[in-house]
This record gives sequence, C-alpha cells and structure tokens, in this order.
Amino acid sequence: MVRISVDLMGGDHGPSVTIPGAALALERHPDIRFVLHGLAAECEPILEKYQPLKQASTFVPAEMAVAMDEKPSQALRQGRYRSSMWRAIESVKNGDADVCISAGNTGALMAMSKFCLRTMANIERPAIAAIWPTMRGESIVLDVGATVGADAQQLIDFAMMGAAMSRALFAIERPSIGLLNVGVEEIKGNEEVKEAGRLIREANMPNLAYHGFVEGDDLGKGTVDVVVTEGFVGNIALKTAEGTARQIAQYLRSAMSRTWTAKLGYLLAKGAFDRLREKMDPGKVNGGVFLGLNGVVIKSHGGADADGFANAVDVGFDMAREGLKARIEHDLNFYHSRRVGASDADTKSGEQDKA
Amino acid sequence: MVRISVDLMGGDHGPSVTIPGAALALERHPDIRFVLHGLAAECEPILEKYQPLKQASTFVPAEMAVAMDEKPSQALRQGRYRSSMWRAIESVKNGDADVCISAGNTGALMAMSKFCLRTMANIERPAIAAIWPTMRGESIVLDVGATVGADAQQLIDFAMMGAAMSRALFAIERPSIGLLNVGVEEIKGNEEVKEAGRLIREANMPNLAYHGFVEGDDLGKGTVDVVVTEGFVGNIALKTAEGTARQIAQYLRSAMSRTWTAKLGYLLAKGAFDRLREKMDPGKVNGGVFLGLNGVVIKSHGGADADGFANAVDVGFDMAREGLKARIEHDLNFYHSRRVGASDADTKSGEQDKA
Repeated sequence: MVRISVDLMGGDHGPSVTIPGAALALERHPDIRFVLHGLAAECEPILEKYQPLKQASTFVPAEMAVAMDEKPSQALRQGRYRSSMWRAIESVKNGDADVCISAGNTGALMAMSKFCLRTMANIERPAIAAIWPTMRGESIVLDVGATVGADAQQLIDFAMMGAAMSRALFAIERPSIGLLNVGVEEIKGNEEVKEAGRLIREANMPNLAYHGFVEGDDLGKGTVDVVVTEGFVGNIALKTAEGTARQIAQYLRSAMSRTWTAKLGYLLAKGAFDRLREKMDPGKVNGGVFLGLNGVVIKSHGGADADGFANAVDVGFDMAREGLKARIEHDLNFYHSRRVGASDADTKSGEQDKA
Repeated sequence: MVRISVDLMGGDHGPSVTIPGAALALERHPDIRFVLHGLAAECEPILEKYQPLKQASTFVPAEMAVAMDEKPSQALRQGRYRSSMWRAIESVKNGDADVCISAGNTGALMAMSKFCLRTMANIERPAIAAIWPTMRGESIVLDVGATVGADAQQLIDFAMMGAAMSRALFAIERPSIGLLNVGVEEIKGNEEVKEAGRLIREANMPNLAYHGFVEGDDLGKGTVDVVVTEGFVGNIALKTAEGTARQIAQYLRSAMSRTWTAKLGYLLAKGAFDRLREKMDPGKVNGGVFLGLNGVVIKSHGGADADGFANAVDVGFDMAREGLKARIEHDLNFYHSRRVGASDADTKSGEQDKA
C-alpha cells in the first residue's frame, strides 16, 4: 500500500481535474490510499461521482485554498496550517502519507514544503527535479528552479539526489550523471561547475557514474540519466525547451494548413501527429519533484488535465514505493561520512589516487 | 560598396563551402567587394569556377589554417599573423574590410578577434549575439557564450549593443529589450539581473524600450526584440533550443514512417515539411555576431552549407551597410556621458525621479 496526500484545490482547474486525475491513477494502482485535502463544498459533490476513489480515500476538509497567483510569502502567511496545500504537505510530515501531490503554485508549494518539512540533514537547499523527455527515453534534470545559484557542494548534493530518484523511477542501478556546462573540456565553465566536477570525480561514488560535463543539446539527446545544474540555468533551460516545442508545433500547424495537399497529408498522418503531440505535451511528462526535504512533494503542472495529473500521481507512487527519501538519506550519509574520513587523511587519499 | 573579408578555410568543409557561399551572397548583393583569405593551393582552383566572385575579390594567400578542434590559446600562439583566420580579422583592423566572416572554431575566432581588434572604449567584454527564430520573426539574443558571467553594467552594455544590432538588421527604431530571468516579478532572479533591471530602467535610453524581465519560453515567442543574458545561461539556452528542435524533428521522422497512411500523408505534405525543416534548420538562421570589438566579426555555423554561409555573409552585409560599429559607439558614448553627469548630480537626479 502506498499512501498519497493530494491538494485537490491546486492547479488552473482545481478539483474538477484533480479528482478525476486521482481516480485515474487509482485504476492503474489499486493499492494507493489517498488523503484528499480540499474545500468541502467544492470537492464533495465531485467526489460523489468517483465512488472507487471515495472508498479508497480519507477526505479532510480545509478552510481555504492557495490562489495560483499568490506570492509565496503571502501564501505562507495566510495559508499556513489552514490551506489544503499546507495540510496535504502536513500529511507527509505527520506520517499519514508517503508523498504529497499538488498542482498549486510552485513558489507557494516550495515555501510551504520547506517550512513544514524542513531540509534533510546534510542538505542546505532543496531542488526541483524535472523528468525530461529525450531521444533515448527520459532523463532527470535538477535544479529547475527551487533556488537561484548553487555552490560546488550543493551541485554534488543535487547529483546524489537525482541519482537516487533515477534509481527509484527508472530502476537504473548506477545512473550516469552530467554537469551542465558551456563545453565539455575541463577548463570550461564557471568556478562552481569546475569545482563540482573535480569533487564528484574524486568522490568516486558507488551509486552513480560521473560522465563529465554535458551541454545544452545533450538534454534532448539524453546523453546522461541525470543532468545537474543550478536553479537559474535549469529553469531557463526547461522553459526554453518548452517554448521551442510550442514554437515548432505552431510552425507545423501553419505549414499543414497552407495547401490542400498538405491538409490532406495531415489527415492521413493524423495518428502520427497525435503521437507526436503527446510526446511534446508538457502535461504528459508531468511532475516536478521537490528533493532534499524530509518528505517527497510532487508539483504537477498547473495547466495539466486529468490525464496529466494522474501522471504526476504515478510519479509519486513510484517514488513512494521505492522509498526515495530513505535512498537519498542513505547516499548522503554514505558520502558525508566518507568526506569526513577523507579530510582526516587527505594526504593519504591523495597518494592512493596516484597509485 | 560594402567590403567583406572572409576566412575561406573555416568550417567543417572549408573553401568547398565558403567560396560557393560567398558567390551566392554576391549574386544577391552585387555591391560587395571581398577580401578572401585562404591557402592558395586549396582555394585558387575552386575560385576559378566562380568568375564573378573572383572578379569582385582580392585573394590573399595565407600560410596556414586554424583547425576546427584547436584550442583557442594554441590557435592564437600558432596562427597569429599567419593564419587565414587572423588575416581575415586583420583586414577589418587595417580598414581593408568593413566586416569579417569566418565559419572557423568559435573559441579561436573570439580569442583572435579580441587580440587583434581589442574591445571598444567603455566595453569590458565582448558578446556573441545570435539571431533567434521566433513565432513573430527573429530576435537577437546575447551573450550566447563569449564569456561566462557578467555583472549588471556588462548586461547593460549587452543591451545597448543588441539594440544597435536590432536597428541595423531589422530597421526597428526603438527595439524592446528583455532581461532573461526565472520570473517576471522584480524580486526574482540573481543580484546581477535585478541590478541591471534597475539601472536600465533608470537610464531611460532614447534608443531602446526596456520591457522588463522575460523567461525562457519568451525566447521562442519573440516577446521582445532583444534578449539580454550572461554567456553561460545564453549558451545553455541556445544549445537547449537547438537540441529540442533536433529531438522533435527525429520524433516527427519516426512518427511519419510508422504506418503506410502516415507515409502517404508525409508525401502529400512534403512541401510543408520542407518549409518546416527550413525554419528549424540552424544553418538558415546563421551568423553569431561578435559585438563590442573595434570591428564586427561574424561567426558562421561550422556545419553550414553554401546557403548557410551565404546567409552569414548577408548578415555581415546588413551590419556593415548600416554602420553597426558606429551606432554602438554612438549609443555607448551617449549612455556613458549621461552616467558621468548623473553621478555628478546624484541627489538631484534622485529628486527628479520622485517628482
């Protein structure tokens, strides 16, 4: 059994999407037990229509909902303890749920998650990990915008968290890790990235295979399983890719409607186009994952439909079943215990490296 | 008459692409006069086949060519004064050409350009500006990788250089400028970007319209005429967009070859697909422009074909005809003279702001 708490009020469409989405995920994973948080007046009538979901859930009425355009500080001030978002996160903190899903506003969700769950021991900053569609399948990219700036040590924390997520989600034993940079040579990039490259190579972690630097076009190629970068760059890269996909979709639509033969060709190839649209749809590869907190929180795309929201629940299901949080803690403890050992015997380990 | 110097040896295919490319550009702009630099043994036989180009050119034999994978420091050490790349840049320095085009390796071209031409007065760092295809047409994005990191003042220099380029290339009187950031609110982003936003708003330049912050997906939308960012982020954004375009093209190819109806549809819509491919082809929107040096240098895509190289020459032609360098110098002088005035009378201008 996997226990998932859901903020029903999040997203552009609220319970009219989150309830059918949760119901869909339940069909695929009948062993989910939900803790659903929302405004009773809005949620209960919809929930009545989804009896299997209702049977598998505990509904907890909340006093208020966080608005999609609310500032994080304001959401935290007004919505703490009382909003469906807060209480969905709190279910994880209290041990009533293994993972929390919300399609609510990212800033508010991160602010509340940090405040409620706190960062893990050994972790200074949480990260948001995106599941990135590639030519090879899917990669994990983090941080896509939890915080701006990261030093070398924080980048390494991101690498370990991303590797643990990759193992949980894709069952890859020893995921390959790349540091996002402006070139692949060791002299390229800024100090933080170069230093992180040196440290992660030296650490020689058993649970991840450090590939080296990767560039922006390696994201789409799927060169590595996990791409690590700080939040400013990661956020720009994610939104640039989304924007480019939308731009090409628009080119395609306009090209396909220009002549009669193109229109006919479009009709004949419609199945193929539908598959392409599905591949390019950000809602389909849904679920930014907050890592580094004492509990896993999944942010679903605000504009997702029921299908998209169900996908985010699926991601949460996989994470919880595979014990993502425990895996991350284990890896971090292992790394940091070795680091303490290493600095006690720096010279010796330096000599071993040469041997 | 516009005088253009060309490094014939640059690019993956050297003179077999650069000579036909220059010939093509000459057909479109018969008033170009070329100064062509290359190895005589390789270039002269090809040049013989392009008599109109030969008539409109001075060929200057070079002693050596810079390799595509040569490190910038090595290229500078070995190729200075002697290589076709160096001598093409030197033609601009000596006043023999208005602009220089090379498809050679970016790092070497930038290192030689800086060494030979030096940065303009008032400019600390050069930038590489890309011409970015958007849903609305084309925007200018800089810096896409000349240097890593930029402070607020350097970002403003980039804004002014990009605005001048936009006026020269697209004849936009007062281009709109956006600073690339992780959100549009004033509190978002890192210190450099926030400070640059404040400074550029206060400067209230007559030649540009400051729009505010833009996000990664605004690049494809074409929200502003000029997007300003530091070189690390700009490089990642550019390569991420290129990678995404290639990824979608691959999806499309595989979707279109899966069933017979899709294949037939593809054949019927082939004209539309060809137009789409052209739109998505990085070779078509060719020409990274080095700004901030005492002379304009255009970097053509290394993998460009003759068509792509001709497009880079076209960009150089427009820049030279519109006097890009003089425009940038004019704007910089105007801005910096006002800055000196402003710091003499800081209090007064502060009071005026409030009034």
